[in-house]
Amino acid sequence: MGVEQLPRTIELVEDECGHCVRIVDQRVLPQHLSYLELRTSKELIDAICTLAVRGAPALGIAGAAAMLLVAEYELRQLPEHAYYDAFAAAAEQVATARPTAVNLRWGVERACTLVREYSTRTHWECGTVFSHTQLIGQLAHLVNVMIAEDEQVNRSIGAHGANLLAPGSRVLTHCNAGSLATAFYGTALGVVYSAYEQGKLSMVYTDETRPVCQGARLSAWELQQAGVPCTLICDNMAASLMAAGNVDAVIVGADRICANGDTANKIGTYGLAVLAAHHDIPFYVAAPTSTVDMHLADGSLIPIEERAADEYGEARPFGVPVYNPAFDVTPAALISYIITERGVFEPADIAQVFMKGSC
Amino acid sequence: MGVEQLPRTIELVEDECGHCVRIVDQRVLPQHLSYLELRTSKELIDAICTLAVRGAPALGIAGAAAMLLVAEYELRQLPEHAYYDAFAAAAEQVATARPTAVNLRWGVERACTLVREYSTRTHWECGTVFSHTQLIGQLAHLVNVMIAEDEQVNRSIGAHGANLLAPGSRVLTHCNAGSLATAFYGTALGVVYSAYEQGKLSMVYTDETRPVCQGARLSAWELQQAGVPCTLICDNMAASLMAAGNVDAVIVGADRICANGDTANKIGTYGLAVLAAHHDIPFYVAAPTSTVDMHLADGSLIPIEERAADEYGEARPFGVPVYNPAFDVTPAALISYIITERGVFEPADIAQVFMKGSC
Repeated sequence: MGVEQLPRTIELVEDECGHCVRIVDQRVLPQHLSYLELRTSKELIDAICTLAVRGAPALGIAGAAAMLLVAEYELRQLPEHAYYDAFAAAAEQVATARPTAVNLRWGVERACTLVREYSTRTHWECGTVFSHTQLIGQLAHLVNVMIAEDEQVNRSIGAHGANLLAPGSRVLTHCNAGSLATAFYGTALGVVYSAYEQGKLSMVYTDETRPVCQGARLSAWELQQAGVPCTLICDNMAASLMAAGNVDAVIVGADRICANGDTANKIGTYGLAVLAAHHDIPFYVAAPTSTVDMHLADGSLIPIEERAADEYGEARPFGVPVYNPAFDVTPAALISYIITERGVFEPADIAQVFMKGSC
Repeated sequence: MGVEQLPRTIELVEDECGHCVRIVDQRVLPQHLSYLELRTSKELIDAICTLAVRGAPALGIAGAAAMLLVAEYELRQLPEHAYYDAFAAAAEQVATARPTAVNLRWGVERACTLVREYSTRTHWECGTVFSHTQLIGQLAHLVNVMIAEDEQVNRSIGAHGANLLAPGSRVLTHCNAGSLATAFYGTALGVVYSAYEQGKLSMVYTDETRPVCQGARLSAWELQQAGVPCTLICDNMAASLMAAGNVDAVIVGADRICANGDTANKIGTYGLAVLAAHHDIPFYVAAPTSTVDMHLADGSLIPIEERAADEYGEARPFGVPVYNPAFDVTPAALISYIITERGVFEPADIAQVFMKGSC
C-alpha cells in the first residue's frame, strides 16, 4: 500500500497492431479494478461520456489520445489533401464529448497543433514528405509527454499545496480530484498525499458526491489504497462536521477556472465553499494551469453539463423529474487560494499564472 | 390523486384478538406501498429502529401505541401491585428506541400519564377497581385521539405556513416532513399542501436526503401521489439551485426544538439553513408544539443519534470508516420562523407557545 502503488489511470500501450489507450474503468470501482483497452475514438468518446475515464486532467490526456486513435486507425486511408479537414472534424467530436472541463479541448488542441505544425513542415521543409507513420509516432510521443507532464504537474501542485496545511490537518474533499482524475497522483488529493508524506495530515473526509458517488467509489478507494486515513461522509454532513470544528481546510479540484478566478467543479463544490466561508475554514482549489480558461471572463459563461436522470439510481419514484447538473460554479470571492504547479495564487490573480516563466 | 388520498401512516386496528398497530412500511417505498400489522412492543420498537415508521410526529403516536401493546399483551398477567413498575420499565425501553426526536418520549409519557391517573382513580375513587380491559380501552382511545389531534395540528400548521408564501412560490424541502412523517397531512409538506390548495405553489424541490433517501423515496413519492409538482435533487445541488434564483423558501420539519429556538432535524438541515441565509432565502421550520422541549436550553444539549454504516449502501470500498449522524442542529439565528399549530413564531420566542391559550 502507498500512493506510488496506485494504478495508472490512462496509458498508451503498443502491440503488434499499433497503439491502444488503456484506462482504469472507473465505472466499476471500488468493486473491481479493471482496465479497458480502446482502439477507436468512438470507444474512447464512449468511455468519456459514461465516466469510465473522468477528471479534468485525465480528460486532457484522453482528448489527445483520442486524436492519436483517429490518426492511427480512422484516417489512415485518406490522402494528404483530405487529411487535415477530417482530423479537424474528428477533433471537434472529441472536444465536445463533455462540455464543462476545458482540459478535454485543451488536450485535443495540443494534438491538432502538432498535426498543423507537421503539415506546415511537410509543405515548407525540403526533403520532408507526409508520412502517416511519422505523424502517428509524434502523436504517440505527445500523449506520453502529456502523461509524464501531468504527473510532474500534480507532484508540484501537491508540494505547493502541502505548504498551506498545518501539522495534524483534517481536510475535507469533494468528488475525486485524485490520482484517478489525472495521469497519476492527483490534484486536490495530490496535496493530500504530499501533506501525508510530510506527516501533516491526520484525516481526509471525503464527500460521497451524489449522484455518481465519485467520492465514495473513487476517492475513498484510492485513499484507502494509499494508506491515508479517510472517513466517508454524505454530502449533507459537511456542514455539521465543520460546525463541530473537525475540518481545517477544504480542498477540491477544478474543471474550468475563468480569468477572474471563478471556478467550475463537481456539483456541490459551490455549497461547500459557502459553508467553508460561514465557518471561517480556508477553501482551496487545486488544478493544473491547463484548467485556466483565459477566454472566459467569469463563471457565468461556463457551460454546465446536465446529465441523465438514471444516474440517480433506483431510490426514487418512477416518473418524478430530477435536476442533474454535473457541475456548479464557485465565485472567486469564496476561494482562499488556487494551487497550481506554478505556485499558489489568489483567485483574482490567477491570470498572472500565464505571465510567469514556464514551470 | 390528491393529498386526501394519501395513506394513513399509523392507525389502530381492532379485531377479535384485540388491537394491532398498522403502519405503512416506509422501508420499501416507493417501490411498494405495503403495511405492517404489529402486535408486540418489540415489533413496534423494531419498526421504529429500522425506520419502517419514522418522523417526529408519527413517532409520538408510535410511542403511545407501543404502550398500548405493552398493556394489552405483555403485562396482562401481572397483578396490580407489579403492574405500574413494569409499565414504567417498558416505557423507558420504548422512549429510548431513538434518541433525537422528543416526540417519541412525549407520546410514551402521554400513555404513562394516563396509566398513572387511572391508577390514582382506582385507589381513591369509591367503587372503582383496577381493570385491564378498562385501561386498555382508555389507552386505545388515547392513541386514536392523538392520531386525530395530529392531523388537526398539521392542517393548522399548513394554514399558518401557507400565509408566509407568495403566489408562485418554489419551495425546497429536506428529508420527509410529510404525511408519512405524521398521522396525516405532514408538517413541512402540510404547508406545501395547504399552499398548493391555495394555488400558491409552483414547484417543490426535494433533497434526496442521503443516506436513507427519505426525500427521494418518501417526499417525492407522496408529492407525486398528491399531484403536487415536484423535482428531485441531490443534497449537494441545493446551493446552485439557490444561486440560480430558483428557491423562494426552504421549509423543513423538526425532531426537537429547544427553549431558545435551536432545532434538531435530519442531517443536512443545518447546511441548508446556512445556504439559505447566504442567499437571503427565508428558512422555515414547521413542527407541532409537541416537538418543543422546554427542558433543553439550547441545541448543544440535544442527543444526536449516530446510525450504522450499512445505511450508506454498496457504493463504497469495504472497510472505509463512515460518519453517519442522523441529525444536525440549526441555530435559532438561521431560522426565519417556526410554524406551529398555534401560529408562527420567531425562533427566540418559541417558549411563548406555551404561554398562549390551548389551540
